[in-house]
Amino acid sequence: MNNKVAIQGIKGSFHHLVAQEYFHEDIEVHECLSFDKLVESLLDKTCNMAVMAIENSIAGSIIPNYALIDANQLHVIGEYYINIHQNLMALNGQRIEDITEVYSHPMALLQTKEFFKQYPHIKLIEDADTAEVAQRIHENQLKGVGAVASYAAAKLYDLNILGSEIQTIKNNATRFVIVQTKNSAIPEEDINKASLKFELDHKRGSLATILNVMSDCRMNLTKIQSLPIIETPWKYSFFVDVTFDKYSDFVKAKSVLEIMAEHFKVLGEYKNARI
Amino acid sequence: MNNKVAIQGIKGSFHHLVAQEYFHEDIEVHECLSFDKLVESLLDKTCNMAVMAIENSIAGSIIPNYALIDANQLHVIGEYYINIHQNLMALNGQRIEDITEVYSHPMALLQTKEFFKQYPHIKLIEDADTAEVAQRIHENQLKGVGAVASYAAAKLYDLNILGSEIQTIKNNATRFVIVQTKNSAIPEEDINKASLKFELDHKRGSLATILNVMSDCRMNLTKIQSLPIIETPWKYSFFVDVTFDKYSDFVKAKSVLEIMAEHFKVLGEYKNARI
Repeated sequence: MNNKVAIQGIKGSFHHLVAQEYFHEDIEVHECLSFDKLVESLLDKTCNMAVMAIENSIAGSIIPNYALIDANQLHVIGEYYINIHQNLMALNGQRIEDITEVYSHPMALLQTKEFFKQYPHIKLIEDADTAEVAQRIHENQLKGVGAVASYAAAKLYDLNILGSEIQTIKNNATRFVIVQTKNSAIPEEDINKASLKFELDHKRGSLATILNVMSDCRMNLTKIQSLPIIETPWKYSFFVDVTFDKYSDFVKAKSVLEIMAEHFKVLGEYKNARI
Repeated sequence: MNNKVAIQGIKGSFHHLVAQEYFHEDIEVHECLSFDKLVESLLDKTCNMAVMAIENSIAGSIIPNYALIDANQLHVIGEYYINIHQNLMALNGQRIEDITEVYSHPMALLQTKEFFKQYPHIKLIEDADTAEVAQRIHENQLKGVGAVASYAAAKLYDLNILGSEIQTIKNNATRFVIVQTKNSAIPEEDINKASLKFELDHKRGSLATILNVMSDCRMNLTKIQSLPIIETPWKYSFFVDVTFDKYSDFVKAKSVLEIMAEHFKVLGEYKNARI
């Protein structure tokens, strides 16, 4: 059976690109215009996997996606990194002077706002997906309208690139996770990274104590983030990513964290995609 | 001289509410439709202070605003917390069945998306500011269009509230900071909180070591966040907030951090607004 993989956005979106690169083999893609819909498609078994952006160089963690994973008991079974290349595109024959409105995903507009400072006549408008705007321009032959999207979207929807590599940060890495409703079946020897969540007392030094223990268990912290606990504002929980060489070290760290931290939860154990 | 205070959004926005509550005395408000414009108004001396949302219960830290503070050498001189109350509003005489489109700030739409699940006929569209949509509906007498905004905005722009307190999380605290280009002139005895930034080696245990030192200096961590360093993706810096009883303890912590961490920077020293 082929995997049916939910993506945020439509074909030509960055999520689509990740799905293709991560799974290699033929997959069936399910297009979702929001992360909520993407999670729904896992819960109602329309899909067995989903690709979800989780972190990038500009905005940091995409917290609402962490909340979706946590609240819906999803499991992270893998991660994937791509450098995001943004392009301004429009119908063939249109020049940049003809463009008065550019639509894209809020993150894509954030990544390219420096480029657009040269073109104050262009109004930037937020939309649900990068590729979907490209498709709409093509289907409705919209003049005066531009999209900020991937090179793949320009090819797929027959648009002309008016500005290539227009993201402010040229080396703009975005991290995606692969999630599913079931726990991962990855062999222990392939697991060298984990995403954890826990809560702590507000006592001074409580986080330092936990981090000491994790360091003693040979865990390398690759990310830490305190986060307000929903319904209890300003009481914080922590999202932490760790890498490790030996799964047995991680097993030890887990048993200690279960004792020392409140509501300790493993969001996923998987293979580090970053060297 | 009255303070001229830059706010994100227009009168009736949550930033406006914070400016009024924080400064009490008469202030002149400068309306900005983006955080970039808000920072510009400080740098070109149009304003001497600005109010900036920095953190909320749903999305966590608003990282691009941290980046703006850091990159433009702004100083945090105060903080303020409010519970966000969202309302759906439209022209008088309109019923909820008549509304087909609702515009608001992306954060406001995120905070109220559960409410709108009952009304699948309503299209949610992102906009620059909550109050500005209310003003637009009033000025153009737009039928079929709703705004998600504050009670103050409904009063100011003569709109009727169709749904009150529609935010998903009833206790939805948002933290704002007050920033300026000059360092703060707050007396030392009034300072009991600080926002810090530093970078660390990727050595195992390096963060634990720093947190141990901070705990030894009697600093209480109220927030921690690792963040990709711009232009060097996946090398992380840390944003940390601490509270303390004695300024002399903080002075000690600062001197140790200057030695132990790279690129250590105090983003602001101010009075804790949270008990």
